[in-house]
Amino acid sequence: MADTSAKRLLDSDKTGEPAPDVKRGKTDNENGREGGNESVQENVLSGFKTSSVLSDSAREKNIFIHGKVADQDAVVILEKTPIREDSLAELFSGSTLKLEMKNDIYSTYRLQAPPHLNEIKTTVVCPATEKHIKKYQRKESFLVEETEEDYKNITLPHIVKQSFSVQWVYNILEKKAEAERIVYEDPDPDVGFVLLPDFKWDQKQVDDLYLIAIAHQRDIKSLRDLTSEHVPLLQNIFQKGKEAILQRYNLPASKLRVYLHYQPSYYHLHVHFTKLGYDAPGCGVERAHLIADVIQNLQSNPQYYKTRTLYFPLRADDGLLSKFKEAGRL
Amino acid sequence: MADTSAKRLLDSDKTGEPAPDVKRGKTDNENGREGGNESVQENVLSGFKTSSVLSDSAREKNIFIHGKVADQDAVVILEKTPIREDSLAELFSGSTLKLEMKNDIYSTYRLQAPPHLNEIKTTVVCPATEKHIKKYQRKESFLVEETEEDYKNITLPHIVKQSFSVQWVYNILEKKAEAERIVYEDPDPDVGFVLLPDFKWDQKQVDDLYLIAIAHQRDIKSLRDLTSEHVPLLQNIFQKGKEAILQRYNLPASKLRVYLHYQPSYYHLHVHFTKLGYDAPGCGVERAHLIADVIQNLQSNPQYYKTRTLYFPLRADDGLLSKFKEAGRL
Repeated sequence: MADTSAKRLLDSDKTGEPAPDVKRGKTDNENGREGGNESVQENVLSGFKTSSVLSDSAREKNIFIHGKVADQDAVVILEKTPIREDSLAELFSGSTLKLEMKNDIYSTYRLQAPPHLNEIKTTVVCPATEKHIKKYQRKESFLVEETEEDYKNITLPHIVKQSFSVQWVYNILEKKAEAERIVYEDPDPDVGFVLLPDFKWDQKQVDDLYLIAIAHQRDIKSLRDLTSEHVPLLQNIFQKGKEAILQRYNLPASKLRVYLHYQPSYYHLHVHFTKLGYDAPGCGVERAHLIADVIQNLQSNPQYYKTRTLYFPLRADDGLLSKFKEAGRL
Repeated sequence: MADTSAKRLLDSDKTGEPAPDVKRGKTDNENGREGGNESVQENVLSGFKTSSVLSDSAREKNIFIHGKVADQDAVVILEKTPIREDSLAELFSGSTLKLEMKNDIYSTYRLQAPPHLNEIKTTVVCPATEKHIKKYQRKESFLVEETEEDYKNITLPHIVKQSFSVQWVYNILEKKAEAERIVYEDPDPDVGFVLLPDFKWDQKQVDDLYLIAIAHQRDIKSLRDLTSEHVPLLQNIFQKGKEAILQRYNLPASKLRVYLHYQPSYYHLHVHFTKLGYDAPGCGVERAHLIADVIQNLQSNPQYYKTRTLYFPLRADDGLLSKFKEAGRL
């Protein structure tokens, strides 16, 4: 079966011809005359049967689809291509415009471009295994509203019961692992921390700079545990983290976004430093809290984060979401 | 000049016809027969002369171009549209595939789609002023720290002096423009608002849902003007906005991110509703403020946003940034 499919994929290339039902521009008539031998020139995806959309992104204009190609499981990934400056003249002269809206000096259109100027990058994984399909599956998120009581009754018991291991964090703090990756350390047990690059950053360019400061204090699970007594710790991380990044990467504080996550992905206090202008995953307002805001809020109200209703997204497969659902809080 | 341009933009719609040089599919021959009267059917962008690319995003597949339409300055924004699930069957059967690479079970292609299944959203600003051109030009951003005093001494005088026009907002509130786009309205002069899709959203799929609620009250410039007296307005926008979106788009509140911008892009109170999971531009923690947080903060401290130090990014070419620099605040 695999061979058949692979052959079909290759055939489509070797003929270099569109499927007979694809007609455009001046070749219409020629194609019309060639009709009849569909099996030879068939587009490998023309018989694709969609089973489900695994995920898609309206922002990035891509879609991940699970389906069947000739009875074999396949994953097809479509992604629109960036608009190239060198194609603009031809795009403007060769397209059709449909007016949608006009208001004052603003108007919007749907532009229909010649296909060769507006290609879609297509990746086919065939045959695809269960693992491929899971890999590309998006897990939906839901915004959860967590009151002070919800934290005590739902979230905290869940965290305690799960007793997520943070041994890897302790390994870093004790230099048992990743010691060579440390960018800066303040060893003070109360206000000290270790600063190191996040795994998501390849450190090849500062455009997507991403570092994590991990507090030496071990008893702060998250934002919810912070009170005014932690202001010196937060101020120290904020200040010395910025200085270390300026020194090491020549990036001033005005180019940094410094924040905590709630919920965090592990329950040991840590602070994210990312470059302003880089859309780092998790820098959205629904999960990130600027450390400068956190400090101010604690200064004016020591119990701010103990008492406040907090909002955060949880993925459909997160155990905590089930707990909120069971409690009738979603 | 403005009239001419507006007329040209409209003409393109009224004829409802593609430019003569755009030929596709079965209509080729008909179009061919109609050739010769180019001036009547002209595509408004067919004579567009590009001066420069102001910015582009390979990730988001968009491009912002400055150029001339019939001797008038114009900004043209092109953005590829998200891939729609309901178009997949036709896309697969009606496209041409060109094989690029094959390795084991993985293969990649360039897919050439029928133009009507692969449109490019096009926005034209014409005539465009220097301000528009600057607005769309990619510029580095800097994080600014604005204290209560900075707002009074730097930001507020700048806003007042610039007196940015919000006539287009009043046009919407008075139904002089975009009336047919309104999704929901509460006409109450104190707590009422108009809800309509943001220009960035093509409304073809809810994955990148983006609506704006514009308050009927005209004296609230931004977050900085809000006090506890505005809590009923904010609660009304939050509650009725969510209900309207559930009713119209079948999207529950747990899938929404609802927030204000500071600085806003125009100084008339408005609230952003975007889909959770869609990385909407401007949803980052450095600019967005969840309306639920804003309401809570005002409830516990009526002067919260009048007195708080606020952080926000400003682009290098923003006049306000120069003011902060002149004041030695950056």
